[in-house]
Amino acid sequence: MFFYTEQLINEIVPDEPDPAAAKALQEILGGHFGEMRTMMQFSFQSANFRGPATQYRDLIRGIFLEEISHVELVQTTINQLLDGSGTPKQDGASGDAALKNATGDGITYHYIIGAQSSLPVDSAGNPWNGSWVYDHGNLVSNLLDNLVLEATGTLQKSRIYEMSSNKTLRETLAFLMVRDNAHQNAYAKALETLGVNWGKVLPVPQYDLNQYPECRKYLERGWNNVQFNFRLDPTRIGEIFSGPSPDRSGGMLSVEPPPAGFPVPVLAERPMEHSPGIPVPSPAAAQQQQQQPVMA
Amino acid sequence: MFFYTEQLINEIVPDEPDPAAAKALQEILGGHFGEMRTMMQFSFQSANFRGPATQYRDLIRGIFLEEISHVELVQTTINQLLDGSGTPKQDGASGDAALKNATGDGITYHYIIGAQSSLPVDSAGNPWNGSWVYDHGNLVSNLLDNLVLEATGTLQKSRIYEMSSNKTLRETLAFLMVRDNAHQNAYAKALETLGVNWGKVLPVPQYDLNQYPECRKYLERGWNNVQFNFRLDPTRIGEIFSGPSPDRSGGMLSVEPPPAGFPVPVLAERPMEHSPGIPVPSPAAAQQQQQQPVMA
Amino acid sequence: MFFYTEQLINEIVPDEPDPAAAKALQEILGGHFGEMRTMMQFSFQSANFRGPATQYRDLIRGIFLEEISHVELVQTTINQLLDGSGTPKQDGASGDAALKNATGDGITYHYIIGAQSSLPVDSAGNPWNGSWVYDHGNLVSNLLDNLVLEATGTLQKSRIYEMSSNKTLRETLAFLMVRDNAHQNAYAKALETLGVNWGKVLPVPQYDLNQYPECRKYLERGWNNVQFNFRLDPTRIGEIFSGPSPDRSGGMLSVEPPPAGFPVPVLAERPMEHSPGIPVPSPAAAQQQQQQPVMA
Amino acid sequence: MFFYTEQLINEIVPDEPDPAAAKALQEILGGHFGEMRTMMQFSFQSANFRGPATQYRDLIRGIFLEEISHVELVQTTINQLLDGSGTPKQDGASGDAALKNATGDGITYHYIIGAQSSLPVDSAGNPWNGSWVYDHGNLVSNLLDNLVLEATGTLQKSRIYEMSSNKTLRETLAFLMVRDNAHQNAYAKALETLGVNWGKVLPVPQYDLNQYPECRKYLERGWNNVQFNFRLDPTRIGEIFSGPSPDRSGGMLSVEPPPAGFPVPVLAERPMEHSPGIPVPSPAAAQQQQQQPVMA
Amino acid sequence: MFFYTEQLINEIVPDEPDPAAAKALQEILGGHFGEMRTMMQFSFQSANFRGPATQYRDLIRGIFLEEISHVELVQTTINQLLDGSGTPKQDGASGDAALKNATGDGITYHYIIGAQSSLPVDSAGNPWNGSWVYDHGNLVSNLLDNLVLEATGTLQKSRIYEMSSNKTLRETLAFLMVRDNAHQNAYAKALETLGVNWGKVLPVPQYDLNQYPECRKYLERGWNNVQFNFRLDPTRIGEIFSGPSPDRSGGMLSVEPPPAGFPVPVLAERPMEHSPGIPVPSPAAAQQQQQQPVMA
Amino acid sequence: MFFYTEQLINEIVPDEPDPAAAKALQEILGGHFGEMRTMMQFSFQSANFRGPATQYRDLIRGIFLEEISHVELVQTTINQLLDGSGTPKQDGASGDAALKNATGDGITYHYIIGAQSSLPVDSAGNPWNGSWVYDHGNLVSNLLDNLVLEATGTLQKSRIYEMSSNKTLRETLAFLMVRDNAHQNAYAKALETLGVNWGKVLPVPQYDLNQYPECRKYLERGWNNVQFNFRLDPTRIGEIFSGPSPDRSGGMLSVEPPPAGFPVPVLAERPMEHSPGIPVPSPAAAQQQQQQPVMA
Repeated sequence: MFFYTEQLINEIVPDEPDPAAAKALQEILGGHFGEMRTMMQFSFQSANFRGPATQYRDLIRGIFLEEISHVELVQTTINQLLDGSGTPKQDGASGDAALKNATGDGITYHYIIGAQSSLPVDSAGNPWNGSWVYDHGNLVSNLLDNLVLEATGTLQKSRIYEMSSNKTLRETLAFLMVRDNAHQNAYAKALETLGVNWGKVLPVPQYDLNQYPECRKYLERGWNNVQFNFRLDPTRIGEIFSGPSPDRSGGMLSVEPPPAGFPVPVLAERPMEHSPGIPVPSPAAAQQQQQQPVMA
Repeated sequence: MFFYTEQLINEIVPDEPDPAAAKALQEILGGHFGEMRTMMQFSFQSANFRGPATQYRDLIRGIFLEEISHVELVQTTINQLLDGSGTPKQDGASGDAALKNATGDGITYHYIIGAQSSLPVDSAGNPWNGSWVYDHGNLVSNLLDNLVLEATGTLQKSRIYEMSSNKTLRETLAFLMVRDNAHQNAYAKALETLGVNWGKVLPVPQYDLNQYPECRKYLERGWNNVQFNFRLDPTRIGEIFSGPSPDRSGGMLSVEPPPAGFPVPVLAERPMEHSPGIPVPSPAAAQQQQQQPVMA
Repeated sequence: MFFYTEQLINEIVPDEPDPAAAKALQEILGGHFGEMRTMMQFSFQSANFRGPATQYRDLIRGIFLEEISHVELVQTTINQLLDGSGTPKQDGASGDAALKNATGDGITYHYIIGAQSSLPVDSAGNPWNGSWVYDHGNLVSNLLDNLVLEATGTLQKSRIYEMSSNKTLRETLAFLMVRDNAHQNAYAKALETLGVNWGKVLPVPQYDLNQYPECRKYLERGWNNVQFNFRLDPTRIGEIFSGPSPDRSGGMLSVEPPPAGFPVPVLAERPMEHSPGIPVPSPAAAQQQQQQPVMA
Repeated sequence: MFFYTEQLINEIVPDEPDPAAAKALQEILGGHFGEMRTMMQFSFQSANFRGPATQYRDLIRGIFLEEISHVELVQTTINQLLDGSGTPKQDGASGDAALKNATGDGITYHYIIGAQSSLPVDSAGNPWNGSWVYDHGNLVSNLLDNLVLEATGTLQKSRIYEMSSNKTLRETLAFLMVRDNAHQNAYAKALETLGVNWGKVLPVPQYDLNQYPECRKYLERGWNNVQFNFRLDPTRIGEIFSGPSPDRSGGMLSVEPPPAGFPVPVLAERPMEHSPGIPVPSPAAAQQQQQQPVMA
Repeated sequence: MFFYTEQLINEIVPDEPDPAAAKALQEILGGHFGEMRTMMQFSFQSANFRGPATQYRDLIRGIFLEEISHVELVQTTINQLLDGSGTPKQDGASGDAALKNATGDGITYHYIIGAQSSLPVDSAGNPWNGSWVYDHGNLVSNLLDNLVLEATGTLQKSRIYEMSSNKTLRETLAFLMVRDNAHQNAYAKALETLGVNWGKVLPVPQYDLNQYPECRKYLERGWNNVQFNFRLDPTRIGEIFSGPSPDRSGGMLSVEPPPAGFPVPVLAERPMEHSPGIPVPSPAAAQQQQQQPVMA
Repeated sequence: MFFYTEQLINEIVPDEPDPAAAKALQEILGGHFGEMRTMMQFSFQSANFRGPATQYRDLIRGIFLEEISHVELVQTTINQLLDGSGTPKQDGASGDAALKNATGDGITYHYIIGAQSSLPVDSAGNPWNGSWVYDHGNLVSNLLDNLVLEATGTLQKSRIYEMSSNKTLRETLAFLMVRDNAHQNAYAKALETLGVNWGKVLPVPQYDLNQYPECRKYLERGWNNVQFNFRLDPTRIGEIFSGPSPDRSGGMLSVEPPPAGFPVPVLAERPMEHSPGIPVPSPAAAQQQQQQPVMA
């Protein structure tokens, strides 16, 4: 069973709207190697796990749990990049085309299907596809596949980083690049326990994360060698994720509590796009709105 | 951020393997109106929510949280239905075709891609598709769409119920039918707060859940009018989900703590299908296996 | 603008339910070379037509009109083949699995998504896909493509004919094979007006339709060389579709009024599958049901 | 059976070419909630209808019939928006790139697959997909689903309206918004006959259609509460579609004859794009062109 | 540029038709981890290669070349498994359903689209999809991805091996398992040249290929450590593919000439399925058939 | 079995990068009527061929062989059009967005998935789809379908030619238009041997290839009536491909040896995009790099 507290796993740094950046970032949300894939792939691999070596299942499931928060972070980042990108004029429908300049290099879906918000599609607008998720039914194959998945996550993020200097975009990418690095170390370490020696090959790509300024603070905290633990019950993840890191840059692996969490930005209504366009509440609803939260 | 404890939201009742039932149940996992869709649809609608009426966002998100556990429950049920369906003989590859009778009316994927385990596809083997997820960017449209989604969930489950008398299958379906009913009530109630009066139309379909024997115990607990709360922080869900139920059968809506939780069944390795086929552990790995869980 | 009278373009011959035949026939409805494709392909080609040679547009549109009725005929035939294939017992959900034997070699969708009725998918359950529709923006390419499309329609139908001796199935196939033959002649003739001489190559395949007993009555009416005219206004179709047929078997082409039409079979409700499951009507609705049809 | 007269259901208002508007409008033609989906969804629901309450089938089929004309209207509008958007120079292939500036913010398909004409794809170029069509096999589910479908139609059109002030685009959108409103009222009324009271919630979104200047003339004719009847035989549609409208703005529902109809614009050939590129007609064809239309 | 000689890379061993085996084998042809994917993935990776380390490009391209022959081998094996599976009676269309028992547990496509022959789809009938092909634009990622691809090829083949004891099926699978093993060794060795030490982890899965009797003769020839060279010009492949094998079972890697080649089985016409259904040749064609091959 | 020599079938003419041209050209590589489709369609049709008339199989296979080289040519042309389109600055990640202006009117995939290189997708980013490949299991249908395929190839290429005056783009298009013309003639001739007389209808479209300046040199060599022979063993292709051409412009068909071949351009590494980003080689690898090519 899954529990939740309404806090983002990392901060949304404010900057100007940037529809082209939102378009590129959809690859990280709904693309072949995006966060929805990692979330679902690790979900299936942990649910389908066979045999008593549950330390490996706990490792995969532990990363799965963090990926759910990554999906939420990327959804929120896309929303922030889109919000206000096509500011409608007051006179609205009776005047000029209010969203005329909104689309720019963006995705039309962002302005037609929703009202400037995220979607389960990739950067070309192709919907997320279940055939991308793979559980090979074999541990070594799964670990190798997951290693490729996390390595490609970093690769794609580092390329999108070069496509815009928008701070909202870059902060989220930088955080995720460090986390992908940690997850890559996790799967690499799991393969080490089975006998592989990676030499200096990992992580892929052969970058220095310090060259991305936003990454530095995360590296100083050692987050490229940390696995956050979102389990409320015991886990064997530390049997794998401990000891020397397989990372080219060294360090020691450790399992730590989740980060502090950041508030979710509030998105204003967009009446001209009928979003959400709540009808005037009925008297019954007005009454209910004076009740208190049940769990406060 | 999302947290987890390794317990299923409902019990897996043991019965014989049934590959045809596993095939049908894939529709409930990866189909157009299956649990992966409800999970992702409510994820996007809550992340993209606009405006101050956050009691509606909390309702949608609250159901999203339960759906993640539904995905886990259906994955595990499919695994139980498949496991042992093609028991290989000892002599294995050198003898007769060990999986010859396994496929039967099942899905070939279950025996080729994985080793008798669940997949993100529907009952015809079509992969889950992100275009099915919809956030209209408009509250009333979303609530109506979600109502249709939950109603169709029950419809499909009640039809699959008639396709096999396997107890593993029926128990999971019965639990989910009652929960879909509760979620249908949630979205119907949200529309009531905006002024709709449903008369005796809901829930869809016009069934009596008591006709399904496995449903009765859940109805006796009133779970068709309960919303489980998986939030670790305050939530406004009770501003909507309280008072008289829009359910034809009456009752009062209430938000309650999650159910107690059930253990995840252990799946044995299947060496002949190379699942997981862990190589003999290296000495280093053997050492690590004697370490203790970090959070125990 | 499009008008309608509730009559099928051909008769539904009763026979036993046959889910495997229904499965195969979905290829003819929603497959790559099925009736939905012909309908939409000719719709786009006629709407997008360029230039003054509108006799060709009228030919393509004329066939488009008939294809809408073909879609309706195949939908209805599939329904007839499915209806009653999984007869539920009276005791319903409380007894044995009522649909256990229904699926057989059929498509699970037929029993889960709907209640034993047709779907826009092909015989493997793959959904109809807009990329199959092609308007080349060039008349000769379009005519050649349409010729291949109609020829393949007959090819596939003649192969499905061999897969079951069910009379419901075979009558609809036989009618459509003769009509596909006529439409193949139409596109072949259009190419003749541009200078092609087909020799004895057409129609494809090199069959004798008389070998299919159900075809004979249609051939006796000459329907392989007839184009039905569903236009309520003038059309230039006769400028193409007249004179000697390009059909290997000879004959003269002629445009004729539509056939007489046949009643649509009535499908009974299936309460156990909640189809349609109309709730007990409200008093307001009961009043309205006593009103008279507006156009009677 | 289906009949046709070559008249558009509404006027095409001339304006400049606008490939970006054509791109956005493809969502309304081939998108998840576009006119092809409404057409096919209502086609399947009416063909698969079960039981004696045929007034509901006649309502669904009646809207289906109008949707075929909507498809034709949107195809033609897209063609008008594209036509001439990439005017080739006289010197053609031997000179500069004639279509260089044509694509702009448009869809490449419009210039490669066809010669500046409509396609069965959405605004991101994704092909129309049969999995979007849904017949739940349950009347209430179908009515609710159709209500969501029509409501979303208006939502998306009102957003595209804000993306361009092109008159060709806006006139078609305005007509369709009023008609979607009428169809939303139809499904809402059908649910009223089963006992639902919508209060002031409908139509979705909570707009005032009068704010869109092009809508006003249609509202003055009361077309948001009118259902056009394209049946040539009796229909029970009036048993549902009559009496007070469920529309927030009030009014009485009535079934009326179709509108007068408008001529289809003529599209010139585009020889440089080889469209249609009719070869010089053979003597035989030249002869035939002097024949008279058969039905004139 | 690519050249060809009409010889199969391995023998087709005759056995009875087996449509269920043909269905399963489609996964190896057109599935996510099938031969079409390996062929196209290595095609793109070699064409897109960057930089001077062309020994890696030559390795990838060398395997690409062999994969084209694997596609041909699997196509031919599927044809052999299907051919004659639905033997039509002499009286054909006028008699009983000739293909009634043909489909069995097979794919309907095999009998409707073609006449008992292979298709670019997987074992569930899903068409091959270009999104599965991946060129990461990074050498290490590509090598790791390719390693997973080849390992999964063996995994899937070894599972299909257990689904039927048909000799036609098993011989092709056995040959391909040994070759996948060799290709897995190739990518593993390439990663060794970059510093990885695989210990005893590879190949995946941890099988003993000798347990599959058909594999033994290929192992005796050492083909699990051989790369066939299909280049007609020099290649640097030997700079990687030489020295000790990374295979758990040891051995030395070597580049060798292609195997001798085997004749392509001749498939008889199937007139009742109109395949190919050559019309009676015209006199012109009859004349041409007496000409000699140009290159004999 | 397939053999290879590393030479392109035509020259890559250098010009400036042009991402919009690369985008359009993806239609020719991975589109519905692109080179991957022709390659795979002819592969399946030749492998599945039935009956003794193997001169037709040899014709289809002969064109298949050339299409593999076409795929390679278009991959390489796209790479040339993309390479350097987003030149990163020296200061890289720490400075401004290095790829900010790279995407322009291009495909985001080109900069995220790979590092400025080709993909198996079409011009809208939709992945190549196996359902487009068709083997009708009937010779005449196949020949007609292939004729349409080749004709559409030229149509699309002639339209893309008008979208950019980039020399790299136009040279490849011009070569392929002439080759498509030759292949169209091949299938038209095959149908002539069965009795069709094409008059002056072919080739489609009714262009004069001489109007495209880059085509002229190929026409002077007569390449629109030549079939290159890539077989290393005898072939019966000349029984079909000889005698008068069905081409409107006349000429005689002849089978000739392949063209001389052109070198593959070398693509430089792009370290900032981590492509290929080879880690510093290990000592073992360094040793191996001093070995000699095995086949030099």
